[in-house]
Amino acid sequence: MSDNLEISRRRLLGTMGAAGATGLAVGAAGGAVGHAVLGDGSGTTGPALATVGSTRVPFRGAHQAGILQPLQARGHLVAFDLAPGAGRKEAVALMRRWSTAAELLMAGEPVGPSDGGIARDAGPCSLTVTFGFGRSFFDRTGLVARRPQELEPLPAFSSDRLDPKRSDGDLWVQIGADDALVAFHALRTVQREAGAAVRVRWQMNGFNRSLGATARPMTARNLMGQVDGTGNPKPTDPGFDRHVFVAAGGAQPWMTGGSYAVVRRIRMLLDDWDALPLKHQEAVIGRRKSDGAPLTGGTETTEPDLDKLGPDGKPVIPADAHARISAPEQNGGATMLRRPFSFHDGIGPDGTPDAGLLFVCWQADPTRAFVPVQRKLDRGDALSAFIRHEASALFAVPGGPADGEYVGQRLLEA
Amino acid sequence: MSDNLEISRRRLLGTMGAAGATGLAVGAAGGAVGHAVLGDGSGTTGPALATVGSTRVPFRGAHQAGILQPLQARGHLVAFDLAPGAGRKEAVALMRRWSTAAELLMAGEPVGPSDGGIARDAGPCSLTVTFGFGRSFFDRTGLVARRPQELEPLPAFSSDRLDPKRSDGDLWVQIGADDALVAFHALRTVQREAGAAVRVRWQMNGFNRSLGATARPMTARNLMGQVDGTGNPKPTDPGFDRHVFVAAGGAQPWMTGGSYAVVRRIRMLLDDWDALPLKHQEAVIGRRKSDGAPLTGGTETTEPDLDKLGPDGKPVIPADAHARISAPEQNGGATMLRRPFSFHDGIGPDGTPDAGLLFVCWQADPTRAFVPVQRKLDRGDALSAFIRHEASALFAVPGGPADGEYVGQRLLEA
Ligand code: HEM
Ligand code: HEM
Repeated sequence: MSDNLEISRRRLLGTMGAAGATGLAVGAAGGAVGHAVLGDGSGTTGPALATVGSTRVPFRGAHQAGILQPLQARGHLVAFDLAPGAGRKEAVALMRRWSTAAELLMAGEPVGPSDGGIARDAGPCSLTVTFGFGRSFFDRTGLVARRPQELEPLPAFSSDRLDPKRSDGDLWVQIGADDALVAFHALRTVQREAGAAVRVRWQMNGFNRSLGATARPMTARNLMGQVDGTGNPKPTDPGFDRHVFVAAGGAQPWMTGGSYAVVRRIRMLLDDWDALPLKHQEAVIGRRKSDGAPLTGGTETTEPDLDKLGPDGKPVIPADAHARISAPEQNGGATMLRRPFSFHDGIGPDGTPDAGLLFVCWQADPTRAFVPVQRKLDRGDALSAFIRHEASALFAVPGGPADGEYVGQRLLEA
Repeated sequence: MSDNLEISRRRLLGTMGAAGATGLAVGAAGGAVGHAVLGDGSGTTGPALATVGSTRVPFRGAHQAGILQPLQARGHLVAFDLAPGAGRKEAVALMRRWSTAAELLMAGEPVGPSDGGIARDAGPCSLTVTFGFGRSFFDRTGLVARRPQELEPLPAFSSDRLDPKRSDGDLWVQIGADDALVAFHALRTVQREAGAAVRVRWQMNGFNRSLGATARPMTARNLMGQVDGTGNPKPTDPGFDRHVFVAAGGAQPWMTGGSYAVVRRIRMLLDDWDALPLKHQEAVIGRRKSDGAPLTGGTETTEPDLDKLGPDGKPVIPADAHARISAPEQNGGATMLRRPFSFHDGIGPDGTPDAGLLFVCWQADPTRAFVPVQRKLDRGDALSAFIRHEASALFAVPGGPADGEYVGQRLLEA
C-alpha cells in the first residue's frame, strides 16, 4: 500500500513540474515571492510581494511552526537540560513562559520590559520557534508513563562518531528566521526566559540561502553544492500528514498533531569531496549536480528510473547512490521531511572547514523513517566516505498550541 | 581646520535628515531598495527594485570593493600566513590567482572547472572580496622598503585581552555577501586558489541584518541592540576621501587609493549588558537605544549637544559616554569608517554567548584615527565594562585594480 502511495507521489510531482514545485515551497529557498505562493497548509501569511521582514508565521495551529515553513536563512538549535532539582512543576512554568515569549517573538513584538531590542525595527522575518522533549525529560519530570515508544534511543550506527556533549538533551528549541538579528534575539530571549530552570546543554548555528538570492524560488543547495530537498514529500501528497504528523488515536494522545525530530550534526569532509571529479560526485548521489535531475535524465522533478541500465550493463543510478538507497521506494515507503540548515563553524588548525549539515528530519515515527533509512545508508551509502555524523538527538515535538494553551500543555497537565 | 570640516559634516547631515541618510547607504542595512539609491561613489549597480541576488559590485575601480558598500548580511574574515619558503614570487602568483577568482566571484561566475557549485543559481548577491597585507608580509617578501609607516604595530591597550593565534597575519581577505552560500563559496574558492602558497592563520564568521528585514533602509543594530553606524562619515562629506583613503603623493605610491583596516574581535559581555537598566545602557553610549538619537534630543541624525547640562548640573551626555569619547570633535577630527559584522560562535559551557562585534574600521592613517580614539576609549569609555577585545590585526589594503591589473600589483611588481 505504501508503495502505491509513493508512486502516486512521484507521478504527481512529475506532471506538475517546476511551476508546481514552486508552490509546494518546502525545501525551496528562493525569491521574494516564495512566501506568498504557499498553498501548503503551513499557514504562513504574507502579501504577494512580501519583504523579507513582513512575513509572519502563526504560533498557534494544529502543528508547531518550523516544520512546514520554507527553509529560513538563519537557524539556531539549542538543547537544554533541566537544572538539578527542577521537575514537572518547573517544566510547566518554563513551557508557559517560553510559549508566551515565542508567540510575541513570532509576531515581531518585544518580550517584556527587559527586551534587549536587538530585533527592533525588523519585522517577524518568518521567525519560527519550535519546542521538543527528549527522552530524559520524562524521567526528570516523573512522566515516564507518557513517554512515547517512539523516543526509544536511536540505534548506534557503525559510522557514528558522536560527541555525547553535543547530543541529546531534556528539551530542544529550534529557531529559524530570514534575518540573523531576529534569530539571535529569539535565542537570547529563549535563554533569558529559561531562567534557572534549565541550563544549555549544546547549541548550534546554521544557515540557508537568503530570500531573493536566486531569481526564482528554487530547491536549496547544501555546502557540497548539491540540490538538496528534491525528494521531500509535499504537503499536498497523499499520505503526507500520515508520514510526518502523529495521527489522533495513538498511544500518547498528547502527541496528536506532533512530530518526531531527528537532529544530526553531519560534518562534510569538503576537501575530499571537492577533490572528487564531477562525474564521481554525481554518481555518489545519483543526481546531476547542476540541476538536481536524476542521472537517468529529465529535470529536477523527473522521477528517477532506478532500473535503467547503462551501455556497460550497470545501473545508471549506481547501487550505492545516496538518493537510491534513501528513496522511499527502496525502504517500504519510509518517508521523512528533511528541513536542515547548513553550518560553518570556522576553519580548523589543519585548514579544513568545520562545516556541513545540521540535518533535521521530521516524521510520525522515527523507527519507520529515519532509523531504517539511516541503517541502510550506514551499510552502503557512497556518500559515507565524505561525511561524519558528529552529534545526534531525537525529540518529541508536540502539536501546535490551541488558543489559550501553551506548548506541551497536553503532556504536562493532562 | 579639521574641526571646521567636522562641523560642516554634522551640519550637512542635520539638514539632510533621514531621507538624505538613506541615500548615503554606508552603515545602512535595510530594504530591498537599499542598493538602488546609492549615489555614494561606491560604484554599486543594481536595478531600482533589485532582488537580493542580482546586485553586483564591480571588482575594478579606484578603491577595492568592501569598503564603501552597504553592510552585507554575511561575512568571512580570514588571515593567511605565507607558507615556509614562499616569498615574493609566490605572492605575485597568489595575488594574480586571487584577483582572477575575485573578479569572477563578484560577477557571479564559477571559478574554473573545479568550482564546487555552492553558489550556483544565486546572483552575485553584493559579494565583495577585499585583500590586505599585514606588517609581516613585507619581511617575508623582501619588501621592507615598501612597508608603510602606517603598519607600525598597534600599541598595547590596557584593556586588551588579545589571543595572538587569532591576531595579525601576512595576508587578509574580507568577504561579504547578502547570501550565506555565496559568501561561503567565495571563502572556499579563496582557500582553494591559495594552493600551497599560504596557510590559514585565523578565520572568523560574521553577519548583519538581511536586506529587506526592515520596512525601509535603516542604520544597523549590533548585538547589544544599539543603533550602530550613525556617526560614520558619509562619502559625500567634505574630507571623506582624505580621511578614509590614502591620497596620491604619499611615501608609498603603491598605496594610493588604498586604506588601512583595523580588525578587532570584540566580545560583548551580553549577560552583564542585558542586566543593565535601559537608562544606564543609554548613558553608556550617550544615545537613545530605541532610535539612536542623542540623549540631548532630536532624531538619529540630530547633532549631539555635548555641552548641554541636565538639571543636576552634569552633562546630559555623560563624560564617559562612548559616543562622546569617540567623536571626531573630541579627537582633533580623527575620523574612521566603521564597517563591522556581528559574530556569534555559540554558547559556552558557562551559558554565556561567544558573541560580539567583528569591528572593522577603515582610515587613511590608523595613527591618526583608530589609535588615538582607542587610546581614549581604553582610558575612560563606559562601554569598556561590557566588552573585551580578544583579537587584533592591521592591514594595508591597496587601491582597487585598474583594467588588466591584479590587486597589489603596484606593490609587488613596481
Ligand atoms: C550531509 C549529509 C547528507 C547530504 C549531503 C545529503 C544529500 C542528499 C541529496 C543531494 C539528495 C538528493 C536530492 C533530494 O532528494 O533531496 C538526498 C536525498 C535524500 N536523502 Fe540525503 N543527504 C545527507 C544525509 C541524509 C541522511 C542522514 C538521511 C536519512 C537517514 C538522508 C535521507 C535522504 C532522503 C530520504 C532523500 C530523498 C530520497 C528520495 O526521495 O528519493 N540524507 N540527500
Ligand atoms: C563592541 C564594541 C563597540 C560597540 C558596541 C560600539 C557601539 C557604538 C555605538 C552604539 C555608537 C553610537 C552610534 C554611532 O555613531 O555609530 C558608536 C559610535 C562610535 N564608535 Fe563605537 N562601539 C564599539 C567599539 C568601538 C571602537 C573599538 C571604536 C574605535 C576605536 C569605536 C569608535 C566609534 C566612533 C568613532 C563612533 C562615532 C562617534 C561620532 O561620530 O560621534 N567604537 N559606537
